[in-house]
Amino acid sequence: MRLSRYFLPTLKDTPREAEIVSHRLMLRAGMMQQASAGIYSWLPLGFRVLKKIEQIVRDEQDAAGWQEVLMPTIQSADLWRESGRYDDYGKEMLRIKDRHDRDMLYGPTNEELITDIFRTHVRSYRELPGRLYHIQWKFRDEVRPRFGVMRGREFLMKDAYSFDVDFAAAKRAYNRQFVAYLRTFDRMGLKAIPMAADSGPIGGDMSHEFIILAETGESEVFCHKDWLSADAVPADVDYEADLQPVVDACLARYAATDEKHDPATCPVAEADLVRTRGIEVGHIFYFGTKYSDPMGARVAGSDGKEVTVHMGSYGVGVSRLVGGIIEASHDDAGIVWPEPVAPFKVGLVNLKVGDVACDSTAEALYAGFVNAGIEVLMDDREERPGPKLANMDLIGLPWQVVVGPRGIANGVVEVKNRKTGEREEMTPEAAMNRLAG
Amino acid sequence: MRLSRYFLPTLKDTPREAEIVSHRLMLRAGMMQQASAGIYSWLPLGFRVLKKIEQIVRDEQDAAGWQEVLMPTIQSADLWRESGRYDDYGKEMLRIKDRHDRDMLYGPTNEELITDIFRTHVRSYRELPGRLYHIQWKFRDEVRPRFGVMRGREFLMKDAYSFDVDFAAAKRAYNRQFVAYLRTFDRMGLKAIPMAADSGPIGGDMSHEFIILAETGESEVFCHKDWLSADAVPADVDYEADLQPVVDACLARYAATDEKHDPATCPVAEADLVRTRGIEVGHIFYFGTKYSDPMGARVAGSDGKEVTVHMGSYGVGVSRLVGGIIEASHDDAGIVWPEPVAPFKVGLVNLKVGDVACDSTAEALYAGFVNAGIEVLMDDREERPGPKLANMDLIGLPWQVVVGPRGIANGVVEVKNRKTGEREEMTPEAAMNRLAG
Repeated sequence: MRLSRYFLPTLKDTPREAEIVSHRLMLRAGMMQQASAGIYSWLPLGFRVLKKIEQIVRDEQDAAGWQEVLMPTIQSADLWRESGRYDDYGKEMLRIKDRHDRDMLYGPTNEELITDIFRTHVRSYRELPGRLYHIQWKFRDEVRPRFGVMRGREFLMKDAYSFDVDFAAAKRAYNRQFVAYLRTFDRMGLKAIPMAADSGPIGGDMSHEFIILAETGESEVFCHKDWLSADAVPADVDYEADLQPVVDACLARYAATDEKHDPATCPVAEADLVRTRGIEVGHIFYFGTKYSDPMGARVAGSDGKEVTVHMGSYGVGVSRLVGGIIEASHDDAGIVWPEPVAPFKVGLVNLKVGDVACDSTAEALYAGFVNAGIEVLMDDREERPGPKLANMDLIGLPWQVVVGPRGIANGVVEVKNRKTGEREEMTPEAAMNRLAG
Repeated sequence: MRLSRYFLPTLKDTPREAEIVSHRLMLRAGMMQQASAGIYSWLPLGFRVLKKIEQIVRDEQDAAGWQEVLMPTIQSADLWRESGRYDDYGKEMLRIKDRHDRDMLYGPTNEELITDIFRTHVRSYRELPGRLYHIQWKFRDEVRPRFGVMRGREFLMKDAYSFDVDFAAAKRAYNRQFVAYLRTFDRMGLKAIPMAADSGPIGGDMSHEFIILAETGESEVFCHKDWLSADAVPADVDYEADLQPVVDACLARYAATDEKHDPATCPVAEADLVRTRGIEVGHIFYFGTKYSDPMGARVAGSDGKEVTVHMGSYGVGVSRLVGGIIEASHDDAGIVWPEPVAPFKVGLVNLKVGDVACDSTAEALYAGFVNAGIEVLMDDREERPGPKLANMDLIGLPWQVVVGPRGIANGVVEVKNRKTGEREEMTPEAAMNRLAG
């Protein structure tokens, strides 16, 4: 993509309304724009990141054995009356009346609707397990939306659901999602740590939040220092195998949110304990028959008797992750995208547009990257070198290739790693080979 | 995918509420399910088709030079008051009050919001043309939603917008979309014909509906018989070139909706005139300064004077197309998917699950297709042959490979083309080569 033609409205000044770094940087980098309070339009650069995150989430849900569906955003209130949540859910639920005065709502989550789909079609334990997910916009009418996409009102969420014949089977589904979450965040270049969460009235230990570490994170967290060097689960994990040992090994390393951490009972020696901050980006949850019971989601068991199915739900905040990744990965100059979610891999800067040698080298590199299938954004604008380089740092592409008249006179361009700041001069051919590798 | 594990709730009986064939077949094929009146959940098979259509639309918008953004579903009423449409839009607009009693709405279209994005960032003619699109759910509160996804309340639409400095430039944008639409529908295996549409108070000939031919279509259309054999625009069309000749050549062939067709003035001889039915799947529209004027979307022109930008909008009904394609392509046995939008390319039927020879051949073919990157759905359920074959016809995958004990005894399987009905016996290896080619 040529920046001269790209709709990338970067801002020089920091917008006053942005309280946290990810919100500031997303606005400054021209990634998004507020449409109304807590509701955003995704501009081309931000949209690319959102789609990359969504695709990683999708790939790993598919790999774990879930099937993608798509439920609508607008739901009938009747289903929520069946589960009892229509009255319980407070003012965060956006309630709507249609033209026939029927009570509708903008879904904040989908347990009711997915349970309705399940009970309509599934009759026998032989059709289990049921494993469905979707990636859809949700709405929660926050009283005071802020922090940009980290706490917006309209947000994109992946929510998966499981239906099983008993607790043991439900636990297998839970473990699959547990492992899928480790892989999902690892693939995005994030250190995500599962921490026990309140599981509500059901009890048990079947509820975990996945929290990424970020010094600017929203809440304080504690973990054993082994977590910082721990490998995520292997890429070739077999989802058909018993995953309990993988989950147990993971949970054996201490990690706790501020709410759960008690210095008096913490099993980790002070010297081994890391105190930092984090951001919740996922939450997995087993809730038994909480919805299936009132909504009548039952199947015939192997003995012919009716069984109420055991359910779980598994959420990832897809749009929230865009902000979360920036919180976890930025510096004073701007965003530092992990390569798997970067909007483009390479930022190609022509420092002197109009100079024949610079233009021809930049154009040749651009064509080379495009032909090699490498996503490249070329700054071909007539603009001074300083703002061009600052702009490239701001938007945070993993690699910069800088073409300038002094280098070209010596037959070289500069390749910069945005994360480490390392710069290296090399021939255009060597730059091509380095980044196409 | 193995059908034994796939959530594909096909129905034997035709649901009573479905009045048209696409609605009946989508329900029977387990593609979707009504959530509430005019609002549907997409089940795995339907979701795959929806995504394929979306991706073709996206590819062709990108190729034509548009950039993808994503605007939210919920909009502030204030913007619509600026354009004057808040009061004009009738009861089809879903109006919402948030917890702070602010007037919001579920966007039925996005001219106001995109104009707001444009005016916030663009100041100079040098930043034009502006070419943005998004693919997002819309809501129109139809008084009597029916016909399934053909006339739903919540529906997925691609809407593109153009911003240009004058009429001549706006016309170039219009022509690009005109050509992109021809290519988009052609890639889906559809015959789509542009027909002049009412352009409202602005007048001129810059509004066309794209209508696909289907005997079960919603409206009567007339066209010259040359349309039936006409090629769409070539795949290597150069969007940077002058597209007016391509557009003119296309419009030189007569085609008109019932509304526009007048036998008294029709230039086509009766013998050359085709009278059939059609379904609107796209609409492109130039509307000048209708929104940019009241909303103040102006740029500095080349002479420094302020210019109000000329706009156009270009819609494709993405979810509507799922139904539209079925209306255009089905038979008594079920759906007949054009290959580019088929949920799977191959339906592999093991007629006798449990038979060692059948199982091993079917499994080997399945592994072969998966390894070759061919999307395959294998019916590995324990079920009688008749219902299995009927089910495969119903869901309409382009190719069926049938593995049965009689064929296997002779070393062959049967390959069936769903559209032509042609069947051919061949070795499993030959079947593999035929379909992987």
